[in-house]
Amino acid sequence: MAILSALATEVLIPVAGIIGIAFAVVQWVLVSRVKLSPAAAAAGGSKNGYGDYLIEEEEGLNDHNVVVKCAEIQNAISEGATSFLFTEYQYVGIFMSIFAVVIFLFLGSVEGFSTKSQPCTYSKGKTCKPALFTALFSTASFLLGAITSLVSGFLGMKIATYANARTTLEARKGVGKAFITAFRSGAVMGFLLASSGLVVLYITINVFKLYYGDDWEGLFESITGYGLGGSSMALFGRVGGGIYTKAADVGADLVGKVERNIPEDDPRNPAVIADNVGDNVGDIAGMGSDLFGSYAESSCAALVVASISSFGINHDFTGMCYPLLVSSVGIIVCLITTLIATDFSEIKAVKEIEPALKKQLVISTALMTVGIAIISWLALPAKFTIFNFGTQKEVSNWGLFFCVAIGLWAGLIIGFVTEYYTSNAYSPVQDVADSCRTGAATNVIFGLALGYKSVIIPIFAIAVSIYVSFSIAAMYGIAVAALGMLSTIATGLAIDAYGPISDNAGGIAEMAGMSHRIRERTDALDAAGNTTAAIGKGFAIGSAALVSLALFGAFVSRAGVKVVDVLSPKVFIGLIVGAMLPYWFSAMTMKSVGSAALKMVEEVRRQFNTIPGLMEGTGKPDYATCVKISTDASIKEMIPPGALVMLTPLIVGTLFGVETLSGVLAGALVSGVQIAISASNTGGAWDNAKKYIEAGASEHARTLGPKGSDCHKAAVIGDTIGDPLKDTSGPSLNILIKLMAVESLVFAPFFATHGGLLFKYL
Amino acid sequence: MAILSALATEVLIPVAGIIGIAFAVVQWVLVSRVKLSPAAAAAGGSKNGYGDYLIEEEEGLNDHNVVVKCAEIQNAISEGATSFLFTEYQYVGIFMSIFAVVIFLFLGSVEGFSTKSQPCTYSKGKTCKPALFTALFSTASFLLGAITSLVSGFLGMKIATYANARTTLEARKGVGKAFITAFRSGAVMGFLLASSGLVVLYITINVFKLYYGDDWEGLFESITGYGLGGSSMALFGRVGGGIYTKAADVGADLVGKVERNIPEDDPRNPAVIADNVGDNVGDIAGMGSDLFGSYAESSCAALVVASISSFGINHDFTGMCYPLLVSSVGIIVCLITTLIATDFSEIKAVKEIEPALKKQLVISTALMTVGIAIISWLALPAKFTIFNFGTQKEVSNWGLFFCVAIGLWAGLIIGFVTEYYTSNAYSPVQDVADSCRTGAATNVIFGLALGYKSVIIPIFAIAVSIYVSFSIAAMYGIAVAALGMLSTIATGLAIDAYGPISDNAGGIAEMAGMSHRIRERTDALDAAGNTTAAIGKGFAIGSAALVSLALFGAFVSRAGVKVVDVLSPKVFIGLIVGAMLPYWFSAMTMKSVGSAALKMVEEVRRQFNTIPGLMEGTGKPDYATCVKISTDASIKEMIPPGALVMLTPLIVGTLFGVETLSGVLAGALVSGVQIAISASNTGGAWDNAKKYIEAGASEHARTLGPKGSDCHKAAVIGDTIGDPLKDTSGPSLNILIKLMAVESLVFAPFFATHGGLLFKYL
Repeated sequence: MAILSALATEVLIPVAGIIGIAFAVVQWVLVSRVKLSPAAAAAGGSKNGYGDYLIEEEEGLNDHNVVVKCAEIQNAISEGATSFLFTEYQYVGIFMSIFAVVIFLFLGSVEGFSTKSQPCTYSKGKTCKPALFTALFSTASFLLGAITSLVSGFLGMKIATYANARTTLEARKGVGKAFITAFRSGAVMGFLLASSGLVVLYITINVFKLYYGDDWEGLFESITGYGLGGSSMALFGRVGGGIYTKAADVGADLVGKVERNIPEDDPRNPAVIADNVGDNVGDIAGMGSDLFGSYAESSCAALVVASISSFGINHDFTGMCYPLLVSSVGIIVCLITTLIATDFSEIKAVKEIEPALKKQLVISTALMTVGIAIISWLALPAKFTIFNFGTQKEVSNWGLFFCVAIGLWAGLIIGFVTEYYTSNAYSPVQDVADSCRTGAATNVIFGLALGYKSVIIPIFAIAVSIYVSFSIAAMYGIAVAALGMLSTIATGLAIDAYGPISDNAGGIAEMAGMSHRIRERTDALDAAGNTTAAIGKGFAIGSAALVSLALFGAFVSRAGVKVVDVLSPKVFIGLIVGAMLPYWFSAMTMKSVGSAALKMVEEVRRQFNTIPGLMEGTGKPDYATCVKISTDASIKEMIPPGALVMLTPLIVGTLFGVETLSGVLAGALVSGVQIAISASNTGGAWDNAKKYIEAGASEHARTLGPKGSDCHKAAVIGDTIGDPLKDTSGPSLNILIKLMAVESLVFAPFFATHGGLLFKYL
Repeated sequence: MAILSALATEVLIPVAGIIGIAFAVVQWVLVSRVKLSPAAAAAGGSKNGYGDYLIEEEEGLNDHNVVVKCAEIQNAISEGATSFLFTEYQYVGIFMSIFAVVIFLFLGSVEGFSTKSQPCTYSKGKTCKPALFTALFSTASFLLGAITSLVSGFLGMKIATYANARTTLEARKGVGKAFITAFRSGAVMGFLLASSGLVVLYITINVFKLYYGDDWEGLFESITGYGLGGSSMALFGRVGGGIYTKAADVGADLVGKVERNIPEDDPRNPAVIADNVGDNVGDIAGMGSDLFGSYAESSCAALVVASISSFGINHDFTGMCYPLLVSSVGIIVCLITTLIATDFSEIKAVKEIEPALKKQLVISTALMTVGIAIISWLALPAKFTIFNFGTQKEVSNWGLFFCVAIGLWAGLIIGFVTEYYTSNAYSPVQDVADSCRTGAATNVIFGLALGYKSVIIPIFAIAVSIYVSFSIAAMYGIAVAALGMLSTIATGLAIDAYGPISDNAGGIAEMAGMSHRIRERTDALDAAGNTTAAIGKGFAIGSAALVSLALFGAFVSRAGVKVVDVLSPKVFIGLIVGAMLPYWFSAMTMKSVGSAALKMVEEVRRQFNTIPGLMEGTGKPDYATCVKISTDASIKEMIPPGALVMLTPLIVGTLFGVETLSGVLAGALVSGVQIAISASNTGGAWDNAKKYIEAGASEHARTLGPKGSDCHKAAVIGDTIGDPLKDTSGPSLNILIKLMAVESLVFAPFFATHGGLLFKYL
């Protein structure tokens, strides 16, 4: 048996979760010490922010007008974001209610809504709880997952819109202060999300156990609803938020930068508030629910496989909770890592930002490797067995350590490769920038080629992780490898959320009319944020690939499929149609952004043409109409792609059966992961190629610039094309592949019993 | 037994082939009656072309200078194309020689170069010829396939460069005459290729039979080399030709159209000859070898499966030759169809061109359906069995008719969908044109979305064909479905080759300084050609998907694989890495075009800056240097993508074994087909969106134009981006998926015996 007792496990997990939440609260309090009301700032005198920072005071530090203006802009952004999310939640609420009923009806019908106990599927001879109750509990965990995801995303947005103006104000004192404020706020988001996900899942398991007792098979089957709920919420968050943010961004840029030749984030641009709102609802709330979904799903996939392995059969609670223990260790490791960035080191110059963020990744990965080793030694018996499509496979605790560790390190490799292809410190982006000499067309050709090329190493990293972890511990190995990649999620999210906060901070500086020096600092923060955003997307898609494979494995186990044979026509047509789905989905989301952006362009042009004095800065733009256009468009446009993702597994499973559905899942996975990686890296590279020309930091960069040159104009076109690729269609594909897999897993018993109607009657 | 005797089959196939070749020669003679030498034209007086056409004489008909100029330009194009192809063939020759040795060594080593007969793999108890001789004959058929492909491509290029100036001259008499000349020349290419492919294959089978006698298993195994040879040649034709044509095209456009504001094909542009050469080596020779490869491969795939089915076991020669008989019927059907276009109907106005070409597709498909029904009834026994991964499956002759017919009709559906998405007569392209209002960025976003969307229906059509034909006749069904799609290849190629010929004709008209009216006619021919080129690419990729699945099936049969289980990690990593390969390959080809185009831009700029009087038309550009840049770049750049495709199966098969290789093939197939379709449709749509704005044929189009407007400039950027997508990376992917499959098939015995070294020693 394991060294760690069941009781110790019962204590350890919630304690780690609570520590994480407490840490998030502390970070929030620290951020809140940057005062936004001029009265407080004045009253505090030299206490504006941390007293000891004031040694470095600079221009405009006590200019009350600037503080007031920043507070106003922040308010507008926060209100816009809140109002959008509330509108979105209304629609999502309706959808979730309907889908909850669908889950209950489909799963309840498996045994004809019988309330009688039934023989277990895997533990032969034992009696399990009735399918009707598993339907009920699955529905409940679905709703819990959705609500947790919703709350996490919302809180993330709140702290981001709370921190953006504060980051701007801190930028007056130096880049280091601004960095810490932005990073701390990101950490609030990261720790809140990781910890609340863990705590809610843990409580749910314990509450459900009151009913299920010794029937762990049923217990963890019903827990899979948690992953489905988290991911369903993420779907709408990513797609709706993605369309919102890019409609505003593209629309603002097309008129502002291209036609009117005014800078980005210029307050005269009517779409500027919508653009900044978009960063918060898309990149913060959307990204948060995406990674929360991955985390919830990989935990569920691991738990459902574990429940039919020796852990579940022998009722080894500590071993069973190994996935949760890994996450608990992750929270502690990330906490230490965060302190290194915020308290044990200091950023003094612009060029230190990117290395500091990279160091976060390396440190958290290194520490986590030790953490995994310890918890694997403590929580796992030396030998145990794992369910492997009908048979049991023997695994050692060190073998499982390898599975988690390889996922973790594959994540780091993906992160570094992403950085190489999207940071303008390296030749790939510089080549793209150079190709702007011959215009937008070559820029786009080189950018697309870069995105395609950037897929190679991540895919090899994922393939090796899959092979090794599967060889060691079958599908459970893959699930824990995914968990390994996500174990440093708190740090990953902190880095991720840091990007849009800095982006917003830059926007606020511009709108508040702050000096060029401030804007330069926020731009530097933002450029690093672009790269880290791409790294974050790399993690998100890498983990999504592993997660959905693990879910796929859990699905076939639960549906009783022993072999998914490509040589069977049922499977092959699934495979090729599945590989097509990411294209269909991307076509919808790209077109949605395009159409919404066109509407935005018309409105912005209308305002420039009809509001007197707008260009001169004497007239006031009507920000609210632009916010409304983005809101309406994204709500309307998120429905068709959402329906495609949600309905495909239901239709395929019901009409064509589990074999074809297996093909669809595998096809969507292997095809989607490529488009997602290439789309987000292409977009990231274009964005940073543009920034490279704008910054003009090297001899080469200066030959391409300055702002407004033909090269720069070509770069702006590339950047605009990249916007929907990197922030809408690319990242939404993670959800596509994960959500279809988890939905199939939840509905597996229904498909196995009633599925394949078309083939049955043909 | 079948109604058709073996003797009748022996006669029917070569007769059909010879009729096809004779028909091609007749068409060539008809085209040659348009005289290019002014002396002949003068001497012939009113006999310039067909006497009876002269009623419609128009301006400049007997202007000798124009005729001389056209002849000169044609000569320059023809010389450039010939010299490029000869250079290419030198490199390809070296490669083919080395690869022939590799084939011989790998296959010879299977039984340790033993010259002893061995027990057959499938016909238990019988004795088959030694593996060493199969290695020898495979090598021979490989070289034969390569040479046939080379000769077909070369002849196609010759007739195209023979016909382009003649089309221009005929355009003086009216659009109908020009259309017939271009279409006839296309038919020469189509019939030569279809017929020579059939005849050479037929002769090879009969010659090999002299040695193999009753060992049909060995006979048709060695015939698979024919497909590999055809496809290897196609790889270099497509990739080398594709890079050549687009480097020249993009380079010419970037300086000419964008910087210097001179029209397309303006003789002052130094890259204009290289651009026109490119159309012939890329779109004619490359496309020809691509479709020849598909045709050879699907025949080989069908034959190799048939040889281990009841046809082969019972030595039913007629049944065995069913794939060749289908192709023979196809030649006759296409001959009738062609006559309808050239002799039984006449084009009187520009708007009749596209419907006439579409009618060709519909008529050939309808007639062919009847043809297939007849030949299935004549050549097949009422019941027979087909090898199905170890078992024999009973199939009826009507069942097999369905397989061929569904492939044929799926091709037509793919053709129509492609037309819908790429012709500017329909809303998708018009929407893309409309999005140019807000600049190049929205144009690109909408174009990419259009390409993604255009994948949906073709994939469903392919999936249904696969499911139905596989359910009826296992992998043999899929092979004959592919043959069905390719059975009207002569008409398909005629339509296809028509496009670049018209494109060249327009270029020659511009360069020869012919009137605006002539250019309008050739532009109309060309616009229809753009759509038909996209349709041709649709056919090429659709058939490639079916062909490579059939080859994949033959490969797993031959390698003794019974199940390709996605749940096995060996297969799954193959699947995900295979799905990545098309991205890697596209990254290389896109970047190659980009880099070569940059070099071309520099040279063109240099000439404009240094040659006095070039812009004014008094100086003469140095066309030869531009031709050389394209030649050198394409030869150099075709090696890495070529190596990727050729080495992947060898490396994966040898190191990881047949299971992983199966995964790679399936992954590359399901992922590559999507990128190929979307890339070629996106490119076609952008090209026609630009043409839509230029033509200004509708009220809507006129609001976007005219040439030189901001909208038009945005459309030109889209067009330029689309060039490498639709003419280099997209169509090359067909080859990637087919070639890897056929190579695996040829090397299957080696991989099955010696493969998987890495897993063996780990």
